[in-house]
Amino acid sequence: MGIVVSLEEPRKEGSKPSLDALDAIVADDIIRVNRLIVEKMESRAPLIPQLAGHIVAAGGKRLRPMLTLAASRLCGYQGERHIALATCVEFIHKATLLHDDVVDESMLRRGQESANALWGNEASVLVGDFLFSRAFQLMVLDGSLKVLKILSDASAVIAEGEVLQLLTTNDTETSEEAYLEVIRSKTATLFAAAAKIGAVVAERPKAEEEALESYGMNLGIAFQLVDDALDYSANQAELGKTVGDDFREGKISLPVVLAWRRGDDKEREFWRQTLEHQEQKECDLEIAISLMEKHGALRDTIERARHYGSIARDALGIFSDSETKSAMNEAIDFSIERAF
Amino acid sequence: MGIVVSLEEPRKEGSKPSLDALDAIVADDIIRVNRLIVEKMESRAPLIPQLAGHIVAAGGKRLRPMLTLAASRLCGYQGERHIALATCVEFIHKATLLHDDVVDESMLRRGQESANALWGNEASVLVGDFLFSRAFQLMVLDGSLKVLKILSDASAVIAEGEVLQLLTTNDTETSEEAYLEVIRSKTATLFAAAAKIGAVVAERPKAEEEALESYGMNLGIAFQLVDDALDYSANQAELGKTVGDDFREGKISLPVVLAWRRGDDKEREFWRQTLEHQEQKECDLEIAISLMEKHGALRDTIERARHYGSIARDALGIFSDSETKSAMNEAIDFSIERAF
Repeated sequence: MGIVVSLEEPRKEGSKPSLDALDAIVADDIIRVNRLIVEKMESRAPLIPQLAGHIVAAGGKRLRPMLTLAASRLCGYQGERHIALATCVEFIHKATLLHDDVVDESMLRRGQESANALWGNEASVLVGDFLFSRAFQLMVLDGSLKVLKILSDASAVIAEGEVLQLLTTNDTETSEEAYLEVIRSKTATLFAAAAKIGAVVAERPKAEEEALESYGMNLGIAFQLVDDALDYSANQAELGKTVGDDFREGKISLPVVLAWRRGDDKEREFWRQTLEHQEQKECDLEIAISLMEKHGALRDTIERARHYGSIARDALGIFSDSETKSAMNEAIDFSIERAF
Repeated sequence: MGIVVSLEEPRKEGSKPSLDALDAIVADDIIRVNRLIVEKMESRAPLIPQLAGHIVAAGGKRLRPMLTLAASRLCGYQGERHIALATCVEFIHKATLLHDDVVDESMLRRGQESANALWGNEASVLVGDFLFSRAFQLMVLDGSLKVLKILSDASAVIAEGEVLQLLTTNDTETSEEAYLEVIRSKTATLFAAAAKIGAVVAERPKAEEEALESYGMNLGIAFQLVDDALDYSANQAELGKTVGDDFREGKISLPVVLAWRRGDDKEREFWRQTLEHQEQKECDLEIAISLMEKHGALRDTIERARHYGSIARDALGIFSDSETKSAMNEAIDFSIERAF
């Protein structure tokens, strides 16, 4: 009969959460996703396979396709469809990133040049469109109208969210709710769709689809909030990352929203000048960080992230314990604790 | 029993071909398409319904959605699906136009400012993405994987063609074949898909799908070639249209390809300087037009268009005569004879 063992092995006390467990679980699948990315980006137009090379080589966390792969495994899926669909998710993600480059470049025009040198606006727009179309072709090949609905809905929410954000950019009076709405549509919706697809290919009941959707949505929000905090966090600089990109772009993120609301008139004048009018002096980033520290804006942004992380964890509660579930939970902890 | 009358009434001798007959046939359907455009572009982001207003009000020829509507009628379709699918076709068309604005603006950066003032790059990219996503949502609602395949394939061909074109832009050595490949993918592919969908919704046999696809493809090529010629044609100016846009952008179109190939070294030096290096003096457009006239480049561009028009006409040969068929044939004549 065998011995029943708990598959959910608690992490060693004090060890830092990482994505290693999740990486290991999807390792073979990611290799196949990479292969499909390269195969589906073959083209006579050299820019396209060139970008494929970048995507595969860049590595990065690849959280979105990993969510599709891990979620399908969590649901006991034994087939092949998750490979192509994880690729779709990655294509849609990269397409929106390429288009964001154009938007960001426009916004930066008054400031410094964007690092968009290799690509340029034309290529960013058109290769993005190509990836987006390719994603839909892959979905059509997969043949599930349900998946097509999930990802076309997600794409529309992302695009509408970005149009909406054009209006609120640089508006220091943005409310926490309005900001959450932005990151929900810009970031978390694709996380949610990516995870939900795992349950769909495995033909699991609606409750599991919804659980994975909620996991993805809340993980995505937590992930983005921590990113927002990291952009003002000095110890990021030690990791070789740039600090202050959001500040220089005049982007309104939760740390700014909190610091603005907790600040006095003089401080609000500072935020207006630096973010709305984008008149920034060399020491302004340091001042911004010190104001955030004064008001606990970074700490509380992480606290908010922890809240969404808890919701994500509880969403997975309906699944029995497994190595995959444990790895997906650790991904939540990783998303938050990478801030420290 | 009724009396059998020929529905194909020949146009009056000497009367100029127009789109009036086609307009009349799809008039009710176009009203419903307009209504759906407005409905599907409701959004909290004001830019989106604002653009919907533009699309509906601008009117224009609306050839692409008209092709879906007319083709479905030609196939005796009695249902409702053609309305939403014609809307998809229009959304995809407008999305590529918006993205082209960004590409063109980049290319014009060295020259004069683009007339993109109302929208700007960010809005063009993002509203384009929204329309594209909306199109796929509408197709998913329609529920036909076959239609989804036709339009996702078309979108990928369009995007790949545009990326490819980035490489050949301003290259005066572009061959006629290479240029045809560009307009096939950029323009004609969507015409072909739009017309083919008419047979698909009517569930007609493959031969009719292919006939309509061929009609659309060849009509699209003819249409674009005539557009190319009109851009250098003085009597366009009388119609209040701008002449010389392509020239100023350094765009390589068939009149240029022909004039270059038929010209001597000195003329080729002129084309290289004005189009490749975009060093243009005030009188250069007039010189370009006179070189084209000298070599019959405009006349022969129209001749080439006529050739594709004939193929389009023959493609419709398998359908029995009807008012719709006659109107679709007149649309070919209109596309070509508007040059005179």
